[in-house]
Amino acid sequence: MSANDTSLAYPFPISTAMYREQRERLGASLRQSFPEGGHAAVLRAACEVPINSTDCNYLFVQESYFYYLFGLETPEACGAVLADGRGIVFIPRLPAEFATWMGPLPTPESVKARLGVDEVHFVDEMEQVLTSHGVHTAEVMKGKNTDSGIEVLQADLPEGTQLQKSTDYLYRALSSQRSYKTALEAEVLKYVCKVSSNAHIKVMQIAKPGMSQHHLESTFLHEVYYNGGCRRVSYTCICATGHHGATLHYPDNNCAVEDGTMAMLDMGGNYRGYAADISCSFPVNGKFTEAQKVIYNAVLDAHDQVLRAMKPGVQWVDMHLLAIRTTCKHLIAAGILKGDLDTLMEKEIMQYFQPHGLGHLIGIDVHDVGGYIDGCPERPTRKDCCRLRTARAIEEGLYITVEPGCYFNAALMEMAKASPAIQEHLNLEKIAEYAQFGGVRIESDVLVTKDGVMNFTLVPRTVEEVERTMAGAPFSKEIEVYHN
Amino acid sequence: MSANDTSLAYPFPISTAMYREQRERLGASLRQSFPEGGHAAVLRAACEVPINSTDCNYLFVQESYFYYLFGLETPEACGAVLADGRGIVFIPRLPAEFATWMGPLPTPESVKARLGVDEVHFVDEMEQVLTSHGVHTAEVMKGKNTDSGIEVLQADLPEGTQLQKSTDYLYRALSSQRSYKTALEAEVLKYVCKVSSNAHIKVMQIAKPGMSQHHLESTFLHEVYYNGGCRRVSYTCICATGHHGATLHYPDNNCAVEDGTMAMLDMGGNYRGYAADISCSFPVNGKFTEAQKVIYNAVLDAHDQVLRAMKPGVQWVDMHLLAIRTTCKHLIAAGILKGDLDTLMEKEIMQYFQPHGLGHLIGIDVHDVGGYIDGCPERPTRKDCCRLRTARAIEEGLYITVEPGCYFNAALMEMAKASPAIQEHLNLEKIAEYAQFGGVRIESDVLVTKDGVMNFTLVPRTVEEVERTMAGAPFSKEIEVYHN
Repeated sequence: MSANDTSLAYPFPISTAMYREQRERLGASLRQSFPEGGHAAVLRAACEVPINSTDCNYLFVQESYFYYLFGLETPEACGAVLADGRGIVFIPRLPAEFATWMGPLPTPESVKARLGVDEVHFVDEMEQVLTSHGVHTAEVMKGKNTDSGIEVLQADLPEGTQLQKSTDYLYRALSSQRSYKTALEAEVLKYVCKVSSNAHIKVMQIAKPGMSQHHLESTFLHEVYYNGGCRRVSYTCICATGHHGATLHYPDNNCAVEDGTMAMLDMGGNYRGYAADISCSFPVNGKFTEAQKVIYNAVLDAHDQVLRAMKPGVQWVDMHLLAIRTTCKHLIAAGILKGDLDTLMEKEIMQYFQPHGLGHLIGIDVHDVGGYIDGCPERPTRKDCCRLRTARAIEEGLYITVEPGCYFNAALMEMAKASPAIQEHLNLEKIAEYAQFGGVRIESDVLVTKDGVMNFTLVPRTVEEVERTMAGAPFSKEIEVYHN
Repeated sequence: MSANDTSLAYPFPISTAMYREQRERLGASLRQSFPEGGHAAVLRAACEVPINSTDCNYLFVQESYFYYLFGLETPEACGAVLADGRGIVFIPRLPAEFATWMGPLPTPESVKARLGVDEVHFVDEMEQVLTSHGVHTAEVMKGKNTDSGIEVLQADLPEGTQLQKSTDYLYRALSSQRSYKTALEAEVLKYVCKVSSNAHIKVMQIAKPGMSQHHLESTFLHEVYYNGGCRRVSYTCICATGHHGATLHYPDNNCAVEDGTMAMLDMGGNYRGYAADISCSFPVNGKFTEAQKVIYNAVLDAHDQVLRAMKPGVQWVDMHLLAIRTTCKHLIAAGILKGDLDTLMEKEIMQYFQPHGLGHLIGIDVHDVGGYIDGCPERPTRKDCCRLRTARAIEEGLYITVEPGCYFNAALMEMAKASPAIQEHLNLEKIAEYAQFGGVRIESDVLVTKDGVMNFTLVPRTVEEVERTMAGAPFSKEIEVYHN
């Protein structure tokens, strides 16, 4: 990253005030937790990751906690937040010859001007600088990401340092803080969601039978980057069509798009660290069959009911149950399931049709941190709820995906049939009709407000909207605000 | 990867015979090296790489040696090549629930049918299977990639195994073998070079002042994926314009494209492991200035002279010297450098204008293995040659890039001026005119034939071709064959 380049052409500038506010929030938390003073949060940037043993690297992705506080994309830097909220960045001292290959080397002055942090020094000056600010204890990360089980990157202190190191505070404090989005963060999230929505619309408009799934992925990637400045996506695109739609994280995107099938596309851009995560489902030929409408409208009803019920104080597990209960009701009405709604829910039958949670926190990470940190409810044990990535109550400022789904997955159907308690509720003849159907997922990214939610996702949702858009009509929509 | 999917929509099918021939070549080498029998080559596939501590992975890239022999994209597999050339693949035993998330689990039968290998078993059956084939010694990888200095992935043998492990043979044998492309590999390389050439042409045609560099990168990525099926590129795209063109591996691609500047674009698609690596340089407004023509034609002359001189037996270092000597001659003629060509070359002045080697082996890795393996000449010590990634003699079947360049890099110019021996040869006034010029690189991928080379790169090269193409004229070209 060339420092201070006035010719930067980002389509959506991010104010350095956003990162400053995030550091100030952490500073306030440090003051509250350590009223005696002398503690600072110390974080490390990620390193470049080589592709196997070659000399090519993957496109660099900054470590999320570090990026959240400093907005710096440089590898091998460090950063500290003092209790008064001041931010200090430490950059690596690079050999002069790097300039030939990577551009003018960043200097403390150029980085300070660009990031708007309070001080910038070299990494090897860290102890001296922190000590001069009266810091005696470095609060560093220690904890496992609850979605991956991987240890979060921990800052190393210099060898032989007099600084003390504590791992008790930072992971919990910062994971909790990251759940509550600031107004400035919400603007960035709104932007990346809009850009990703537009890319989904473009994909809907170009999709047709006879293509390959990779045409859909390529079109999405191009739209979010070319028009939105998203150099990467938040996760590998899922471009499932036909029976592949029953594979929740279908990774291949290399099969033919066959006439008469549904597409189930789960894709989201990433703008300077901030994620979108949107799923759209539609018939690849632009016209729903009656059988497709049944499943699509079931999932859409679940999605809409949740948006109309979400508000601070509501339990996320209850939202999940509302969603799967709604889908279940539709499956009974369509004759796919047999029996009484309460009985089917008691038997946890939806574990076979929606084997994933209703949604997850999202922010810098697509599966954002803060789902199961200390003090939050534990993972539910019910088999139709246990995949939830959080069981927290909804609070103002949380940003979360709402993504009910309904799938006809061969392996899961075999398991359902093998369960005597479930088997009697399955209309096997009807289910056989859906053997090649795949699945439907409808996923929006919503911000919790004081009395409801705002849906930042701006894509066609009703059957009519989808069909009209696929027929070439322009589509536009304002952000929906729900007062619940 | 769903096994045996008849609906696979790859634009360029790769025959399993290609990998079979590669295994058979290795088998022949094993027979020659171990006439007593009982040795087999054993390799490991790469693992998924998580993005920092999140539960998202980078798009999977298979380990190159493993991919070269088996064509299998699955992580955590192993493979063995027996001395008779038979190939055995060992796949991981995955938990049944993976099917819900990732699609139908591969079975030995499905993988065998798809890959055309001789046997497929599970990884935990490796010792038993190898022993049953009379194998007593597993030849495994051990060596450092000479471009990155990173240890090549070594296969683990099962704990407590009776198999012996040897690290003396495989790295050298297979690195050498990979340098010599088969006719079937040449077809794949031709394909990916054509796809990447077309994408460069598209980028030239849409480029204009006022854009952002990321528009160029996005367009290239989309063209190679949408039209060519290249889901990834061989290396991070370099979309330098203006003064950024003097940064050899300019990584950012986020600045404005300014009128009157040159673009220096170094980008190549990757098709199922096989790489292209192409650089094009052009004026962003479509019309060369006289000053731009001087540098462009100097580099083009160097490029063309090398293509007309390459043939088996010629030393690569001599080709490099031919290139930089040619460029130097033009710089003298243009009055940028002062003095006598031989004197300037003796003083190694071109280290300041082309601080990289003429080119490198290319194949599965963009900087392919085999550059400095045992028995090949060592890295040259001359300062204007020491960056070469190989110093081998050219041989039939090698595939190599020819990429002379000429840059006005501020840091290098300062170093040149600081050298008394060099300083007197610099026309500082002229050089000052090029301060914001950036650089020119012209890079083609060529296959060495029995009496010359074939240039697989099909992009506009002369000033007239570039200007015509940028003005919107269609461009097409046949592969050039040089009998030297």
